[in-house]
Amino acid sequence: MESQITLLGLSTNYTLAKSVAEELNIPLTPVDIQRFADGEIYERVQESIRGDDVYVIAPIAEEVNDAFMEIMIVVDALRRSSAGQITVVMPYMGYARQDRKAKSREPITAKMVASLIEMNGVDRVVSIDLHAQQLQGFFDIPVDHLKAAPLLTDYFYSRNMTDNLVIVSPDHTGAGRARKFADILKAPWGVVNDNIAMTNPESTDAIVGDVSGRRAVIVDDIVDTGYRVQMTARALLANGATEVYVAATHPVLSGAAADKLATDDNIERYIFTDTIQIPEGKLNPKFTVLSIAPLLAEAIQRIHDNDRIDVLLRSSNNPDVNIY
Amino acid sequence: MESQITLLGLSTNYTLAKSVAEELNIPLTPVDIQRFADGEIYERVQESIRGDDVYVIAPIAEEVNDAFMEIMIVVDALRRSSAGQITVVMPYMGYARQDRKAKSREPITAKMVASLIEMNGVDRVVSIDLHAQQLQGFFDIPVDHLKAAPLLTDYFYSRNMTDNLVIVSPDHTGAGRARKFADILKAPWGVVNDNIAMTNPESTDAIVGDVSGRRAVIVDDIVDTGYRVQMTARALLANGATEVYVAATHPVLSGAAADKLATDDNIERYIFTDTIQIPEGKLNPKFTVLSIAPLLAEAIQRIHDNDRIDVLLRSSNNPDVNIY
Amino acid sequence: MESQITLLGLSTNYTLAKSVAEELNIPLTPVDIQRFADGEIYERVQESIRGDDVYVIAPIAEEVNDAFMEIMIVVDALRRSSAGQITVVMPYMGYARQDRKAKSREPITAKMVASLIEMNGVDRVVSIDLHAQQLQGFFDIPVDHLKAAPLLTDYFYSRNMTDNLVIVSPDHTGAGRARKFADILKAPWGVVNDNIAMTNPESTDAIVGDVSGRRAVIVDDIVDTGYRVQMTARALLANGATEVYVAATHPVLSGAAADKLATDDNIERYIFTDTIQIPEGKLNPKFTVLSIAPLLAEAIQRIHDNDRIDVLLRSSNNPDVNIY
Amino acid sequence: MESQITLLGLSTNYTLAKSVAEELNIPLTPVDIQRFADGEIYERVQESIRGDDVYVIAPIAEEVNDAFMEIMIVVDALRRSSAGQITVVMPYMGYARQDRKAKSREPITAKMVASLIEMNGVDRVVSIDLHAQQLQGFFDIPVDHLKAAPLLTDYFYSRNMTDNLVIVSPDHTGAGRARKFADILKAPWGVVNDNIAMTNPESTDAIVGDVSGRRAVIVDDIVDTGYRVQMTARALLANGATEVYVAATHPVLSGAAADKLATDDNIERYIFTDTIQIPEGKLNPKFTVLSIAPLLAEAIQRIHDNDRIDVLLRSSNNPDVNIY
Amino acid sequence: MESQITLLGLSTNYTLAKSVAEELNIPLTPVDIQRFADGEIYERVQESIRGDDVYVIAPIAEEVNDAFMEIMIVVDALRRSSAGQITVVMPYMGYARQDRKAKSREPITAKMVASLIEMNGVDRVVSIDLHAQQLQGFFDIPVDHLKAAPLLTDYFYSRNMTDNLVIVSPDHTGAGRARKFADILKAPWGVVNDNIAMTNPESTDAIVGDVSGRRAVIVDDIVDTGYRVQMTARALLANGATEVYVAATHPVLSGAAADKLATDDNIERYIFTDTIQIPEGKLNPKFTVLSIAPLLAEAIQRIHDNDRIDVLLRSSNNPDVNIY
Amino acid sequence: MESQITLLGLSTNYTLAKSVAEELNIPLTPVDIQRFADGEIYERVQESIRGDDVYVIAPIAEEVNDAFMEIMIVVDALRRSSAGQITVVMPYMGYARQDRKAKSREPITAKMVASLIEMNGVDRVVSIDLHAQQLQGFFDIPVDHLKAAPLLTDYFYSRNMTDNLVIVSPDHTGAGRARKFADILKAPWGVVNDNIAMTNPESTDAIVGDVSGRRAVIVDDIVDTGYRVQMTARALLANGATEVYVAATHPVLSGAAADKLATDDNIERYIFTDTIQIPEGKLNPKFTVLSIAPLLAEAIQRIHDNDRIDVLLRSSNNPDVNIY
Repeated sequence: MESQITLLGLSTNYTLAKSVAEELNIPLTPVDIQRFADGEIYERVQESIRGDDVYVIAPIAEEVNDAFMEIMIVVDALRRSSAGQITVVMPYMGYARQDRKAKSREPITAKMVASLIEMNGVDRVVSIDLHAQQLQGFFDIPVDHLKAAPLLTDYFYSRNMTDNLVIVSPDHTGAGRARKFADILKAPWGVVNDNIAMTNPESTDAIVGDVSGRRAVIVDDIVDTGYRVQMTARALLANGATEVYVAATHPVLSGAAADKLATDDNIERYIFTDTIQIPEGKLNPKFTVLSIAPLLAEAIQRIHDNDRIDVLLRSSNNPDVNIY
Repeated sequence: MESQITLLGLSTNYTLAKSVAEELNIPLTPVDIQRFADGEIYERVQESIRGDDVYVIAPIAEEVNDAFMEIMIVVDALRRSSAGQITVVMPYMGYARQDRKAKSREPITAKMVASLIEMNGVDRVVSIDLHAQQLQGFFDIPVDHLKAAPLLTDYFYSRNMTDNLVIVSPDHTGAGRARKFADILKAPWGVVNDNIAMTNPESTDAIVGDVSGRRAVIVDDIVDTGYRVQMTARALLANGATEVYVAATHPVLSGAAADKLATDDNIERYIFTDTIQIPEGKLNPKFTVLSIAPLLAEAIQRIHDNDRIDVLLRSSNNPDVNIY
Repeated sequence: MESQITLLGLSTNYTLAKSVAEELNIPLTPVDIQRFADGEIYERVQESIRGDDVYVIAPIAEEVNDAFMEIMIVVDALRRSSAGQITVVMPYMGYARQDRKAKSREPITAKMVASLIEMNGVDRVVSIDLHAQQLQGFFDIPVDHLKAAPLLTDYFYSRNMTDNLVIVSPDHTGAGRARKFADILKAPWGVVNDNIAMTNPESTDAIVGDVSGRRAVIVDDIVDTGYRVQMTARALLANGATEVYVAATHPVLSGAAADKLATDDNIERYIFTDTIQIPEGKLNPKFTVLSIAPLLAEAIQRIHDNDRIDVLLRSSNNPDVNIY
Repeated sequence: MESQITLLGLSTNYTLAKSVAEELNIPLTPVDIQRFADGEIYERVQESIRGDDVYVIAPIAEEVNDAFMEIMIVVDALRRSSAGQITVVMPYMGYARQDRKAKSREPITAKMVASLIEMNGVDRVVSIDLHAQQLQGFFDIPVDHLKAAPLLTDYFYSRNMTDNLVIVSPDHTGAGRARKFADILKAPWGVVNDNIAMTNPESTDAIVGDVSGRRAVIVDDIVDTGYRVQMTARALLANGATEVYVAATHPVLSGAAADKLATDDNIERYIFTDTIQIPEGKLNPKFTVLSIAPLLAEAIQRIHDNDRIDVLLRSSNNPDVNIY
Repeated sequence: MESQITLLGLSTNYTLAKSVAEELNIPLTPVDIQRFADGEIYERVQESIRGDDVYVIAPIAEEVNDAFMEIMIVVDALRRSSAGQITVVMPYMGYARQDRKAKSREPITAKMVASLIEMNGVDRVVSIDLHAQQLQGFFDIPVDHLKAAPLLTDYFYSRNMTDNLVIVSPDHTGAGRARKFADILKAPWGVVNDNIAMTNPESTDAIVGDVSGRRAVIVDDIVDTGYRVQMTARALLANGATEVYVAATHPVLSGAAADKLATDDNIERYIFTDTIQIPEGKLNPKFTVLSIAPLLAEAIQRIHDNDRIDVLLRSSNNPDVNIY
Repeated sequence: MESQITLLGLSTNYTLAKSVAEELNIPLTPVDIQRFADGEIYERVQESIRGDDVYVIAPIAEEVNDAFMEIMIVVDALRRSSAGQITVVMPYMGYARQDRKAKSREPITAKMVASLIEMNGVDRVVSIDLHAQQLQGFFDIPVDHLKAAPLLTDYFYSRNMTDNLVIVSPDHTGAGRARKFADILKAPWGVVNDNIAMTNPESTDAIVGDVSGRRAVIVDDIVDTGYRVQMTARALLANGATEVYVAATHPVLSGAAADKLATDDNIERYIFTDTIQIPEGKLNPKFTVLSIAPLLAEAIQRIHDNDRIDVLLRSSNNPDVNIY
């Protein structure tokens, strides 16, 4: 009894789910989703999925609690309806930043979210650029952890913009990520000394590494309020960078962030992916949004076929670099 | 090492938590609760609760997903911070109405919510008037299931309004609840034939039982959109009731319900409890809100002291009736 | 490695298991079942079932504790012997009526039975007409919940007895079940006001709905002592019904019930199914027993083939009615 | 909040539970136990046991499936009613002999029973002379494993019958048990070569060890059909023993065993304990039944007080022997 | 998607894993195994095993803690890398002898090891001659328990040495094992009375059964320090055996055991299997090591194909004997 | 029944356990620990610990697999012997560095170790300076995570060495730790640019931050091979530091590390703690070992008394700094 791929899209980033479905040439299985007056979510899977290899495609984003519950409730329905395998494809995992106690009597919400997903009967998780590598260890089920680096770096390769670059991490914790980008782009890299840069960006100590005369690419996993990339851009220009690009996987863009970034003359362009859907009203000409739908589609096909996934952790422009 | 009672209030119905704390003469332990721009909740318990007997007082109501996650996250923090016993006091349990599959491929969300609470390390649940008796079986931890009937019926006793009453359930599933009220108030009772009453309330078949010449009290656990009580009131008056009261535990009052009910001339008065906080703007002179804070406070004290709880399932006006 | 269907019958209603096997044209895999002098059960599966899709067909009935343990013990043997999937097909689930606490310090035995089945490694449950819809939520594994309504109503269709019927529920909690029957048979329906009918069946208030001049069909899930259907029949005849039939899924028929019912002149005929085997000595000409073996056989085949089950929740006589 | 000891007796060996209660001078907490017509058990604990240290005293014996379910159901009620600690005191554990697979596709029912008890929320088990030492490992909760050897050997000490004894195990697996008895009684010991003794008891090879001229005491954990002790007695007398006694903890005495043993002239006397209640009709003058109630009572008191239990594993007549 | 067999060998007895792989004509999937300076083990599976039916072949032997952790760590890697089924083939299970409490406050380490293996996500265990039959019950996952008896007895059949044998167990607990050997070899059998033989091996009471004039084969599961077989050999020769062989599955051979045994003139020959690899330096001409690789290979093939395993529990020389 | 503190020391760093016991003035409860010839560990707790609040004090260090299993086995014994609460105090957690997958098909061994500890029934873990903050999230039980920073910084305060310091982290991931030290010592701080410093330590780019003319203190959690601190010291001196100290919590000191460090003239002194016992032969005059016994003792007393732990996360020399 060979199982078939079944794809589900929920309210959060339904557009992405649809793109993945188109890539795979498999229609999304319809889900009736309603919100009651008191905020309760009702969901019903509208076609039989008995024994299927089901992929629920939805980030934990936008209104994260609603998004999380929507995933959980549909998983309950899937499990009770005899789905074969249930994979949650959450390109962005909300709450991932709450991954440790920074003070006594704090929760570790990222672990709780992971545990609840697992306890609800999910068989596997697919995600992209989780905030910390240790998050994989919060799950005991397999996690296929994909990377947007091949896609984001391809922006520069495909436009012949790889000369004279410097890759910059806005703080120490992102140094590893920046280094991978630098390896793929065969560029030097630097790190922002964030306790200086956030208050005194024009200081020569604000940047570790030489950026003068180069086009700087700030690399980050998340752009949320945008404050950090703005200050980093000031520091880069003050230290001699010729212009500043931002490449980031997850455009959280809380509150007025999109507007502030769009009007910041220090930054030429933002390259995002569509793990989180940027609302129509927040889009603007400085934002380039690259779709991770082809990557997710290929991952889903390979997972279903039991083919290896590690080949997706390569840039076609520079396949020697392992970007695990 | 005798443990002490620690009380926590969250965002949802903080007023009730405060009232319970006042009844017990124990201050609420402060919790720092923040909402990030992307909807993520952050909570931190601000005083040591090591070894304490902790009670988190919050209904799953208003924005139910946010309310649910707020409870879950603080429980994670409590467990990691060595709380002794964790009791979730949720006077109203959102999602409780989704307690069975009415169509194929539906979830049983009430069970999922119960399971997640339990898996998160909660030791006990206290609730009031759960939608179905079977919900207790969705938990494997102890559930102390309280009843608002003594409080709601006392409204009539304390005002000498017990003569010539008839207690009415708006449908068959609530018949048991209505019968308990009738027993306490020593009144006859009836049931609405809801498949007639919802479309043709003036029919003589709309009501089972004789209501003519009597003050009718419609008894329900939840008033949500209010449509059902409005139609029931029409049926009661058409069948000879002299006037109509509504007694209901949980004032969900979704959307414009409060306004519609306040202006419905068929209904004299609504007696609710404060399991769910009615927003200021929805209050009106026809609503009487009785506080369940004393009931919860006594339950908490008794649970802490290992005293019996069944004595709370009695009406002081008519103590012979077991209202389990 | 495509798995094969393997069928097991145990001591309780072995006849039904055999009928299902004949429908599927698959022999029952022999199980050596012995009872030791002290009541201990010994079971051994006599053929290799490695990797098979195994269905254990046995109600929790007759001596319910022995029946339950017989299922549990064979499941332990199956799991240790590398069965592929283990499905317990229990057309009747004993203890299902103990699904809530009606007094303090009672157990919720139905939940415990469900939990123990699940903890023992069962992958799926198939049952028919569970006492309450909420029981599905007592399991976290998939439950395929079948309905006898198409079969029982076909009795009337196939005999051209659909004219002038009225369908009657013997109490409020069964109203939903009766309504489904009425929909299939395109007949009106009524409910017995059981707190009147049980003591004063001749009262005109004993029945809600008009039954005069009609052939009444009392619909219930279980007939146990039979008292309730006997009193209901009296009420129906007193209120003008021309004759009375009983249609019920599970013939528990405890103690002397079979004899009492057989000699009750108020009731023309009883239509039961064979979810529970009526012992030879209790059978009598007034009992019609319809076999649910074809329904179970088709369900098993569809589960094995990952075909949809919801099509079984239809009456061929009136396929528009969803009888979930 | 210091917890108190609460004692419960069930249907199986209620007499023993009562004796334990008398020893402890604590009344049994009443449990309402009913059997429905279809065999379903209903139980309700009739007094509040919130926070108590509860001991359910009942062997899994007589009708073992009913006995097991009675324990399980009351435990469900206790857990849901907020018992503090739940200890199952089962002096005899039915199904213990099914502790391994002797053929392919057999269950390991003793493990399943242990797992179900544990999964149901029991905190501790107390038992006496479990069939194999490995059974303790079937539980992950603490098991306080008591021994009847001090009591059974005291029979001989208190009657000054310790001279010229020989202790005999009826097969190899019981050799360890016999050796402990021999150590306490300072007597020699032997083993029956059961594959000879069961068919040719008069053979000189039937016994390992010299029994001639001595009073032989056959020691076993269980006497079930009695066949083995009868054949052993024949072998002992044929090999020169002067007379034969039987000392066994658990008098299962299935079927006609009691009668057969009572009329076997080869055996002088049987010393049993009351872990299993011998029905009135099976008692006879050759049976001496010693009560383990004082042992259980002291164990319960010590468990409650967190006092050491190993002191109970000593004979006051010969305290140097460790009889773990 | 048919899964394929994947075989892994670890540090402990890699030679055996290789032999099994050769038998199956499937190369071992390479695992990078490193030991850090502080003893930490690092392992990485070097090829994709997504969806595969994986067999980890390694006894818990030599340095048992390192061997155990090596298995556990690779299982963690396999599970996180989406292995289909994970089977641990541990021909020898270290810690199996610690299967019961012999004194208060001892652990039951064999149970703990079994539980940890299971909790780590292993789907099935294959082992050979577990120390006690009850050990299977320490696992809730399927255990395929193989036996070396067909192989060890074939040593005598293939050399025409079956005449005039006597099979001897060195103590009571091994009597069952010796009896199986005797059945296969159609020889008589005896048991050593170990509490005599260990101190006074020349006593006529040291052996139960007649060994005079026969070639004695001492049968055991484990030879550890070798003391027991040496004393048994002395007893056998003193009681008239013509010569002594030892047949044992697991050559633990701790410390100087190999040397002592090699130079013991009382014993002609030792027949071992390669469940545990005897280090080069301990091998000597008196040791015959038979490989269980063909048995394991056939078991793996049959498990993968869902073929029955019980046929492997037969001796081709005497197929009538069931050696479960 | 108030529980008492019981302290256990195992083979690994027994000296530390003894010091903690002396601080608390409570004798260590003796544990009989043996190693069998084949490496199996045997442990027995030699006094009754029923109901006690037990602390097992042992790092997972030296031979980490043996150390881990020794903890696990004694925990199994404690649980089965009715310990009240079991706390594992492991000042150093071996395998903590394997906390994420750096390549495909790697394990996350730190998570596995955490899960196994938890599954074995441990109630709480106490540790010091876990390698990553996220490790706390690998446990669901409470973790009391202590810090050595107050102790290590006190070395400088108590010797009046706080003037003209600079605190240096040897790589980016340790920047947070260095910053806490700098806050306590009111000193500036810097970070080594490790991808330059490890190959070209004399480069001016090797250090971020100004160290010239200052006494540099390299701060790290673990010193293992020592290579990193040696290269860092070269970089610091090349960039103008006046002298170099090393302050590190866990002296793993694998292989020849101790000798290499003792003879490195670039480094004045190493300040370690005794979380791991440095063997006699590795000690030398340049190593100062500060004892964390008083910290652990106070933590144990506070945990037992349900007093707050966060007060231990303060330096008495500079109590304003929160060093969580």
